[in-house]
Amino acid sequence: MPSQPSKDLQTFPNPAPDRDYEIAFDVPEFTCLCPLTGQPDFAKFKIRYVPDQLCVELKSLKLYMWAYRNEGAFHEKVTNTIADDIVRAIQPRKLTVEGDFFVRGGIGTLVTVTHEKKGKGAKPAAKKNAPARRK
Amino acid sequence: MPSQPSKDLQTFPNPAPDRDYEIAFDVPEFTCLCPLTGQPDFAKFKIRYVPDQLCVELKSLKLYMWAYRNEGAFHEKVTNTIADDIVRAIQPRKLTVEGDFFVRGGIGTLVTVTHEKKGKGAKPAAKKNAPARRK
Amino acid sequence: MPSQPSKDLQTFPNPAPDRDYEIAFDVPEFTCLCPLTGQPDFAKFKIRYVPDQLCVELKSLKLYMWAYRNEGAFHEKVTNTIADDIVRAIQPRKLTVEGDFFVRGGIGTLVTVTHEKKGKGAKPAAKKNAPARRK
Amino acid sequence: MPSQPSKDLQTFPNPAPDRDYEIAFDVPEFTCLCPLTGQPDFAKFKIRYVPDQLCVELKSLKLYMWAYRNEGAFHEKVTNTIADDIVRAIQPRKLTVEGDFFVRGGIGTLVTVTHEKKGKGAKPAAKKNAPARRK
Amino acid sequence: MPSQPSKDLQTFPNPAPDRDYEIAFDVPEFTCLCPLTGQPDFAKFKIRYVPDQLCVELKSLKLYMWAYRNEGAFHEKVTNTIADDIVRAIQPRKLTVEGDFFVRGGIGTLVTVTHEKKGKGAKPAAKKNAPARRK
Amino acid sequence: MPSQPSKDLQTFPNPAPDRDYEIAFDVPEFTCLCPLTGQPDFAKFKIRYVPDQLCVELKSLKLYMWAYRNEGAFHEKVTNTIADDIVRAIQPRKLTVEGDFFVRGGIGTLVTVTHEKKGKGAKPAAKKNAPARRK
Amino acid sequence: MPSQPSKDLQTFPNPAPDRDYEIAFDVPEFTCLCPLTGQPDFAKFKIRYVPDQLCVELKSLKLYMWAYRNEGAFHEKVTNTIADDIVRAIQPRKLTVEGDFFVRGGIGTLVTVTHEKKGKGAKPAAKKNAPARRK
Amino acid sequence: MPSQPSKDLQTFPNPAPDRDYEIAFDVPEFTCLCPLTGQPDFAKFKIRYVPDQLCVELKSLKLYMWAYRNEGAFHEKVTNTIADDIVRAIQPRKLTVEGDFFVRGGIGTLVTVTHEKKGKGAKPAAKKNAPARRK
Amino acid sequence: MPSQPSKDLQTFPNPAPDRDYEIAFDVPEFTCLCPLTGQPDFAKFKIRYVPDQLCVELKSLKLYMWAYRNEGAFHEKVTNTIADDIVRAIQPRKLTVEGDFFVRGGIGTLVTVTHEKKGKGAKPAAKKNAPARRK
Amino acid sequence: MPSQPSKDLQTFPNPAPDRDYEIAFDVPEFTCLCPLTGQPDFAKFKIRYVPDQLCVELKSLKLYMWAYRNEGAFHEKVTNTIADDIVRAIQPRKLTVEGDFFVRGGIGTLVTVTHEKKGKGAKPAAKKNAPARRK
Ligand SMILES: [Ca+2]
Ligand SMILES: [Ca+2]
Ligand SMILES: [Ca+2]
Ligand SMILES: [Ca+2]
Ligand SMILES: [Ca+2]
Ligand SMILES: [Ca+2]
Ligand SMILES: [Ca+2]
Ligand SMILES: [Ca+2]
Ligand SMILES: [Ca+2]
Ligand SMILES: [Ca+2]
Ligand SMILES: [Ca+2]
Ligand SMILES: [Ca+2]
Ligand SMILES: [Ca+2]
Ligand SMILES: [Ca+2]
Ligand SMILES: [Ca+2]
Ligand SMILES: [Ca+2]
Repeated sequence: MPSQPSKDLQTFPNPAPDRDYEIAFDVPEFTCLCPLTGQPDFAKFKIRYVPDQLCVELKSLKLYMWAYRNEGAFHEKVTNTIADDIVRAIQPRKLTVEGDFFVRGGIGTLVTVTHEKKGKGAKPAAKKNAPARRK
Repeated sequence: MPSQPSKDLQTFPNPAPDRDYEIAFDVPEFTCLCPLTGQPDFAKFKIRYVPDQLCVELKSLKLYMWAYRNEGAFHEKVTNTIADDIVRAIQPRKLTVEGDFFVRGGIGTLVTVTHEKKGKGAKPAAKKNAPARRK
Repeated sequence: MPSQPSKDLQTFPNPAPDRDYEIAFDVPEFTCLCPLTGQPDFAKFKIRYVPDQLCVELKSLKLYMWAYRNEGAFHEKVTNTIADDIVRAIQPRKLTVEGDFFVRGGIGTLVTVTHEKKGKGAKPAAKKNAPARRK
Repeated sequence: MPSQPSKDLQTFPNPAPDRDYEIAFDVPEFTCLCPLTGQPDFAKFKIRYVPDQLCVELKSLKLYMWAYRNEGAFHEKVTNTIADDIVRAIQPRKLTVEGDFFVRGGIGTLVTVTHEKKGKGAKPAAKKNAPARRK
Repeated sequence: MPSQPSKDLQTFPNPAPDRDYEIAFDVPEFTCLCPLTGQPDFAKFKIRYVPDQLCVELKSLKLYMWAYRNEGAFHEKVTNTIADDIVRAIQPRKLTVEGDFFVRGGIGTLVTVTHEKKGKGAKPAAKKNAPARRK
Repeated sequence: MPSQPSKDLQTFPNPAPDRDYEIAFDVPEFTCLCPLTGQPDFAKFKIRYVPDQLCVELKSLKLYMWAYRNEGAFHEKVTNTIADDIVRAIQPRKLTVEGDFFVRGGIGTLVTVTHEKKGKGAKPAAKKNAPARRK
Repeated sequence: MPSQPSKDLQTFPNPAPDRDYEIAFDVPEFTCLCPLTGQPDFAKFKIRYVPDQLCVELKSLKLYMWAYRNEGAFHEKVTNTIADDIVRAIQPRKLTVEGDFFVRGGIGTLVTVTHEKKGKGAKPAAKKNAPARRK
Repeated sequence: MPSQPSKDLQTFPNPAPDRDYEIAFDVPEFTCLCPLTGQPDFAKFKIRYVPDQLCVELKSLKLYMWAYRNEGAFHEKVTNTIADDIVRAIQPRKLTVEGDFFVRGGIGTLVTVTHEKKGKGAKPAAKKNAPARRK
Repeated sequence: MPSQPSKDLQTFPNPAPDRDYEIAFDVPEFTCLCPLTGQPDFAKFKIRYVPDQLCVELKSLKLYMWAYRNEGAFHEKVTNTIADDIVRAIQPRKLTVEGDFFVRGGIGTLVTVTHEKKGKGAKPAAKKNAPARRK
Repeated sequence: MPSQPSKDLQTFPNPAPDRDYEIAFDVPEFTCLCPLTGQPDFAKFKIRYVPDQLCVELKSLKLYMWAYRNEGAFHEKVTNTIADDIVRAIQPRKLTVEGDFFVRGGIGTLVTVTHEKKGKGAKPAAKKNAPARRK
């Protein structure tokens, strides 16, 4: 039975919750619609996070990104929304979502959203250990 | 009706004002005139900012950059002016404007202007969260 | 006295007319106007030729390219016109003009025009010797 | 009024029909559906041709590529179909269509279709002059 | 039900048998065993062919490459064998298989095997049209 | 006698234990099995550490990585396990393990695990001196 | 009247003295003589600075670099001297001069000199804002 | 028992002698001595050949290249000698040896030697099929 | 005693005159003067040739290139002159000289001169074997 | 008289001892022997330092690196030894030595050693000014 697009991000338990480490996804396949003109927009996303108790399941992430295919979405808004949805699903210790949108009007746009967990559950030392992303 | 060049930067409300995040524009098409000789100068601009209450509208940015086409402009001055105009239009929490000017006299020139919001409206913690630009 | 844009290509005598050799110009600074919308177009040109009796003078080539700045010009047409004008000015044994136009509608366009001298003045052996362009 | 996807390729008269020259389009934005699973496929297309009497109009090419967005299409088939449709619309002297499809099952697929005009209208000398694509 | 490795290459009818065109696969995931030491070898394969009546089915190619995982295989031999198996399965008009093996003893090895169809079924003109691979 | 895969990491005494310095291994050859489907996964690993009293012996590292060849291993788990095993074998002052897994479902995954030695034996100043990796 | 080499660096008033911003020059054309052998040395220089009240005039910088053409100059010394001369001419808030000298004896040499303004005129906050150079 | 340098190239039977195919070795580790000064020279070699009845054994090639370590060798001579020795050992249908020597006197030197088998044993058609090296 | 610039190209006997092979020099250090303005010009030269009975001695080539340092030289003329001087010194079977001149007036210039030996001493088959330069 | 390998590093007085600046050497030519097998190892070294009263003389550094040619040397040990020898010779304010060793057992090894001057002679502020290496 073929898969369907879905905004429902699946999770699994973090196999190493005692350690701050980073998981980074490279998502070169993303398309949505321009809310003003209805024409297709394309972007490449990079998502990286330091998990707390939960991790994002890879296949559900694919279906999640697919779910934007027929939606109107502004560049700035959709990048924030993807970050919000991941935060809601797994409450990561740290998260960065980058949306690198293809050229429109001769101009390319890159939106970068970062989130850090706050409050009682957060270990202050954790942020120091969060690794810089490999270039 | 075709568009016209215009120094009037349009804005829209920041869809995520509670969060510090970055919007980066890659503007490879810029030309102005050398104030001394009247000959064309070319540059590639990179603009990135952390929005506060407002964002720069993409199409108006294109028309804004176009508006320099027939103006005399020194490298150092025009890069600062573009930064000033964006600050005036959207009062970003942080802004960087890079003007990468083509070779003249065997020498290339890159001017980089950075602005940070000061005063009551600024959240001190925000700067820490401002993401480094992706390379 | 500052220079002016000019369609008048200057020439000088080929210093080695007995030999087929190639002269290649890399012209990253070109802008004209879209004939439909009046908006700026940008391109990078590459011009290479095997001279016969005349060569193109470099400074006049700069002024020639500048002369398109305020003209409406379709991509396909302007690349052919530049080739025609160089052929008229120096009658090269071989000529290639490439216009690499920046993205419009999500699509980049590269127009490549090649000309070879025909008739009595051409040396048949010359074509064999014409060097491939260095990559 | 916003544009609509359309398989109707528009044309305009070749401004230099007496010369063999090449027009190359770089189309990094393409998506269709996998006919077996219904899941999205992505590809980057490169299209280059030597025009005869007609050229492909750029905006209609954008709308044409958009028209595959909700269609099921095998890699090998859709690349041939795009070539067939361009041949039908403009009968080019020479045409190459490359479809570079993103990784599936750990394997990337690149389909390259070439067409050359045959028969009475073709000038045999033309093929020799057709330029190699710039890398 | 999970897939199994298999040397059985599946095929499907060429959707454009009247035209010579190229299908190229990029296979970065390949491992076998060194017949002398039993230690793992790794390689990246590139396979490209001009189909005749049949094409290679992508998923079966993945399973085919997997089937070498636990076999001893010399670099020169295995690259020829893969070419032979594809020839047997689809009798392509032209085929190239490249095996790019990782460094052993400080030396990297690249084996390139090319096959062209001979005899009654081959169209002589086809070879001229076979496109060079995009770099 | 040929070597065998082994999870037994060999060590040798650090030749410069009074100094914080970094040893970085580039391991482009790694394969394991997907625990869900049994199909092969491939990754490139980068391992770097600041040794304390012991260093990892290079040949045993090769055999260690080989030992995952027939094991089922989730991306996030296996990267943490490799880090844990190195910590257990040599108790490094600092360690980073990056597992760069090939595309699955159109998405690449990079897992980065960092460990720092804690407690009485650690020299606090050491971390400051730990060199950034060369890019 | 043709220009002459000159060690006299010309300046102009900083158009934005209230802001810390960076001006970077890319100078790929530099040659001097080896003081020991009299043979030519070549280098590429990169100069970047945060101006205070004055900026370096581009044409005079070209003539300044030219002035080393017939002088003997050790790599380490000449890079420091160029930095000293720029400091003397414009008293920048911050300055970096990099001299990247071509291979001699199989070894390339890169000398990097940094200067920061001290004392009453310096604004302490300025250093924090000084932008990192774009890579 | 450790290996020793040796000029004795080992061979094995070509597993596919009925087909013209190419084997290419990338040898980044080579050093010899300058015959004039006795100082070390370094080079990177690329060797590719179309085997006839024999192939070069990889480990013996490593020992062969090692055997130049303490010999005086001019760039032009040693590259020809390596080609001669491989021709003598395996009589390949075609052979190319490239020696890319590191900079001396500010100049890099690349020597490229090609050999083709002549006479009764050679199949004329073979040359046409010899693949171009992948870039 | 330090070396002096000299137009006197030294030679040595070709160690393999029975074979057509290529020697390529990469000369990134070249400067001369503009004959019109007296200002410095810079270029990178690539020289490759198929030797006949003589080869160019490397150190004398360095001194030869140095000898242009204080001479006025047009781009097109000096590249032809260097080719002529090498032809006179060693009568190569084939020669290519490329002069890649740095940007002037926003335009870079690459001059490529090719020479092939003619007449009684030339072996017709030689040209076929002359290897293409590695990219 | 030809030079000889020598472990004797020569020095000269720092021409700018009042300033912290960096000197970086790129040494692509290094070979030693594996202490276990006696087989050659190859590496590329990068050495950079902030001089105090003395600088390393370039030619003696070449002879110093040459002196390892016939010595057995473990990767981790030799990189530390080179750092120790430079520290002993010039007591730099800061030093980094990187040894990038070629692939053995499918794994590349990069060893990075950093040293900072301690005690009375050191200026604490100096470290802040030490420039990051250019990438
Ligand atoms: Ca972009
Ligand atoms: Ca990371
Ligand atoms: Ca620049
Ligand atoms: Ca960013
Ligand atoms: Ca383009
Ligand atoms: Ca050329
Ligand atoms: Ca691909
Ligand atoms: Ca073309
Ligand atoms: Ca390889
Ligand atoms: Ca990846
Ligand atoms: Ca360098
Ligand atoms: Ca070289
Ligand atoms: Ca090959
Ligand atoms: Ca150039
Ligand atoms: Ca390495
Ligand atoms: Ca530096």
